[in-house]
Amino acid sequence: MRHTVKDIATALGLEAAGAVSFEITHAAEPVGAAADALALAMNPAYAEGLSQGAAQVAMLWEGADWQALGLKAAIFAPRPRFAMSGLTQMLDHGLDLVPGVHPTAVIDSTAQIGAHAAIGPFVVINAGVVIGENAQIASHASVGRNSTIGDNCLIHPGVRIGANVRIGDRFIAQAGGVIGADGFSFVTPEKSGVEKARESLGDQGDVANEGAGQAWIRIHSLGGVEIGDDVETGGNVTIDSGTIRATRIGRGTKLDNQVHLGHNVQVGEDCLLCGQVGIAGSTKIGNRVVMGGQCGASDNIFIGDDVVAGGASKIFTKVPAGRVILGSPAVKMETQVEINKSLRRLPRALKQLADLKTAFASLQETVSKTDENK
Amino acid sequence: MRHTVKDIATALGLEAAGAVSFEITHAAEPVGAAADALALAMNPAYAEGLSQGAAQVAMLWEGADWQALGLKAAIFAPRPRFAMSGLTQMLDHGLDLVPGVHPTAVIDSTAQIGAHAAIGPFVVINAGVVIGENAQIASHASVGRNSTIGDNCLIHPGVRIGANVRIGDRFIAQAGGVIGADGFSFVTPEKSGVEKARESLGDQGDVANEGAGQAWIRIHSLGGVEIGDDVETGGNVTIDSGTIRATRIGRGTKLDNQVHLGHNVQVGEDCLLCGQVGIAGSTKIGNRVVMGGQCGASDNIFIGDDVVAGGASKIFTKVPAGRVILGSPAVKMETQVEINKSLRRLPRALKQLADLKTAFASLQETVSKTDENK
Amino acid sequence: MRHTVKDIATALGLEAAGAVSFEITHAAEPVGAAADALALAMNPAYAEGLSQGAAQVAMLWEGADWQALGLKAAIFAPRPRFAMSGLTQMLDHGLDLVPGVHPTAVIDSTAQIGAHAAIGPFVVINAGVVIGENAQIASHASVGRNSTIGDNCLIHPGVRIGANVRIGDRFIAQAGGVIGADGFSFVTPEKSGVEKARESLGDQGDVANEGAGQAWIRIHSLGGVEIGDDVETGGNVTIDSGTIRATRIGRGTKLDNQVHLGHNVQVGEDCLLCGQVGIAGSTKIGNRVVMGGQCGASDNIFIGDDVVAGGASKIFTKVPAGRVILGSPAVKMETQVEINKSLRRLPRALKQLADLKTAFASLQETVSKTDENK
Repeated sequence: MRHTVKDIATALGLEAAGAVSFEITHAAEPVGAAADALALAMNPAYAEGLSQGAAQVAMLWEGADWQALGLKAAIFAPRPRFAMSGLTQMLDHGLDLVPGVHPTAVIDSTAQIGAHAAIGPFVVINAGVVIGENAQIASHASVGRNSTIGDNCLIHPGVRIGANVRIGDRFIAQAGGVIGADGFSFVTPEKSGVEKARESLGDQGDVANEGAGQAWIRIHSLGGVEIGDDVETGGNVTIDSGTIRATRIGRGTKLDNQVHLGHNVQVGEDCLLCGQVGIAGSTKIGNRVVMGGQCGASDNIFIGDDVVAGGASKIFTKVPAGRVILGSPAVKMETQVEINKSLRRLPRALKQLADLKTAFASLQETVSKTDENK
Repeated sequence: MRHTVKDIATALGLEAAGAVSFEITHAAEPVGAAADALALAMNPAYAEGLSQGAAQVAMLWEGADWQALGLKAAIFAPRPRFAMSGLTQMLDHGLDLVPGVHPTAVIDSTAQIGAHAAIGPFVVINAGVVIGENAQIASHASVGRNSTIGDNCLIHPGVRIGANVRIGDRFIAQAGGVIGADGFSFVTPEKSGVEKARESLGDQGDVANEGAGQAWIRIHSLGGVEIGDDVETGGNVTIDSGTIRATRIGRGTKLDNQVHLGHNVQVGEDCLLCGQVGIAGSTKIGNRVVMGGQCGASDNIFIGDDVVAGGASKIFTKVPAGRVILGSPAVKMETQVEINKSLRRLPRALKQLADLKTAFASLQETVSKTDENK
Repeated sequence: MRHTVKDIATALGLEAAGAVSFEITHAAEPVGAAADALALAMNPAYAEGLSQGAAQVAMLWEGADWQALGLKAAIFAPRPRFAMSGLTQMLDHGLDLVPGVHPTAVIDSTAQIGAHAAIGPFVVINAGVVIGENAQIASHASVGRNSTIGDNCLIHPGVRIGANVRIGDRFIAQAGGVIGADGFSFVTPEKSGVEKARESLGDQGDVANEGAGQAWIRIHSLGGVEIGDDVETGGNVTIDSGTIRATRIGRGTKLDNQVHLGHNVQVGEDCLLCGQVGIAGSTKIGNRVVMGGQCGASDNIFIGDDVVAGGASKIFTKVPAGRVILGSPAVKMETQVEINKSLRRLPRALKQLADLKTAFASLQETVSKTDENK
């Protein structure tokens, strides 16, 4: 794939200058860049690297003096990361899947495959499945009974889509994800120690006697998963089916690698859930929520629109819309920052308190004697 | 699949009333339920939803006035979640696997497949494997050398069972799980900085010099995994083989999605380990232990019977039987609740302490002068 | 596989005594060991177990009186875990893969497979891939466009290697890992609430208005992954491709199950990252770093050489070389140990502080009156 500087600038809606018919084959960091690379130096800090590489054209910050940098041509990116989205899309080779169904794929006769779809080797598609137009389903993926996937989806290798999963258009699933697993929902014939501990916040009653002999019995998940348009799921995610209603992920929401959503979870639109986030069953998350890596949320709580949770926050209770939170248990970010500062001073403070108590007792005695001596 | 109200009530051991020969095809939440649904309204709070759907029969709370709710028939569930287990099992379509070995499956000639087993497309079964009767092994799963799986197992797509794994009856594995990976066990020819830090709790010695040049050498895992009857493992779990003895999971224990068990771990019977729980090598967990999502346990510790750990608890030391714990490091739940309350007051308390110290110094001086003035 | 005591001792560079031509078939713990087992009792605490098993030969601690233990022969292991590495390697059956390409594998005509390589059933190898000599690639694995894997690699079933991944020699990948997924990198056309919260540490501005209507747009990952020699990755790990430069893992580094590395992460040499560790994008980790299970590191930070992080440490900021850390946020281990002790005393200390304030006010009044009375 070769692109001229002009074609890139046009596609990205950016200004270009110089020999814009120059062709590049790839993008590279300035240091060590090859002669056919577009060097990326959208920050003046990267400019000096240009002289340590052979790139002749670059993407630069707005207003950069490209000629002084010794370049033949340049593209100017006032919002660098946004420019990167367009550029990397242009240069991505994709999965190299060929339209049509690979001869090794096993497709149920009742499944419907959309026009121009590409189904890779060893794919298994079960009864009643509907796959949209221009779908790309890579090797070893499987799609369960009665599931539907919209147009222009991109399913990486080995993704497991279960039964009754309904997915919108332009869905991207990174490799190894499991979408539509049975929920972790069990019940004992009689009340269990856990239920009692929840009710009494800590006291299990006489669990050792009562609990004995009680086995966990599965509540099956029949509700499937509903996923809106433009959703992406990361590598090795796990998303459980709902019990009766569907587990839902709203339009535009992105899940990073190893995110886990329990059964009946509802995630709103345009959310970002970073790596290893876990959301327990039946919790509801609003729109535009961002959760840093390794965050967790308890079951059956509500997290409002526009909440931002810092990395490793553990959310045990309802969070109002717009709040920025941190910590375990998660509290307002500024509160947690104050708590963290205080914690570092705590061991010394406890020593000071003990000393003060002693000094106070001594002073109290002094005063008492002074008083008596009057 | 169609079921009469009567058949469902009988199967679940529940009372029914009204036109019990009415047939339903599925269960649904009351709002928006279709006319052939069994509406689920086992709590009076859901009753008003019945009028916003077309369901004509429902499962209700004990003693509900089904006729006043405009229903044709009803089933009464005094313990709703337990009723759900029976109902959802009846209505689950399962994996739609056909008994017999799919022509694409690769089965070693020395493997034994039980009667009525269903082996799906692209399954690989290695030498010496024994699979029980009525087994269902879905597409893309693989079973390593000399492993055995009991009767009535249900292996979802893409599960990886390694070598020397012995599994009981009625085992359910959600998609993508890895059972019997090599343990994370390495050694350096000489003592490493980590070993020294463990011994001295923090001081690594002159690691930068000593550690240099030391490579980690694998200790292979030969012990396999032993799993009792009625165990379930979630999507994308990872369970390591033991080194010499087996890693063990007791009868009736359920692991949620993305749970990780290190090598030599022993988990007792009827435990529930929720999403993303991680148990480090050689730790032993008793019976009926429940760990909330994202809990972790250090290696080589013991967690007693009936312990309940709240979500995201990190367990570094032995926990006695029956204790309910929370936090990181995990302590008794009521202790952690007190600590959490105190933490929110801490920044202000440190300010008060500083103020008190100042005031005390001033008072001390006053008293001292008073004393001198006598 | 049968081995004489002498052969094992020679291979491990250890001393042996007694009937060293005795043949064993496997290793076992002393209790219950079979007559053809090598019993492992490298610690005197295990010696009494020998009488509860049928083993006739054992591996013992240095200087043990093997004859008094009733053994026919013994091997002496002054550094037991190091001896275990050699012994378990000798006794490991491996994956039983047969050299050659399995007839079901789908190999692109432009791919190069090294001499004596074994490619298992249902493996997919894409265009431009180079696989080294003696490679073992187990069933259901896939390797993306233009990736290269060195000699003597061992790829367990179902591993997903993406495009542009360059891996050194002797690489071991446990089952289900995803190497070279697209990074979690998105941008909004205008500044998002998250960017603003980062800038102002908590205040999102008028997010609810501004954020509305902004969709996340993907920045594709073109940089691939570079992995040095002697690296191992655990079950179901996820490693993202870099955006422009590669995500890198240095020689000798080992990743445990479910470890997650974001895009552009750089991990040094001889590191150990234990189960479920997560490293956010662009963070750089030095050499010989050890991170306990469930540790996390924020994006764009630097963790120096020889750092040791205790289990569940959450690292938000730069860590200098050689430091041993613990907690969330992670601080020096001895500081965290002090903080943890203080936390348990905190609720009582706050009560004492309140009492002291009251007593102080009372004393202040007394002194004030005494002063006035003079």
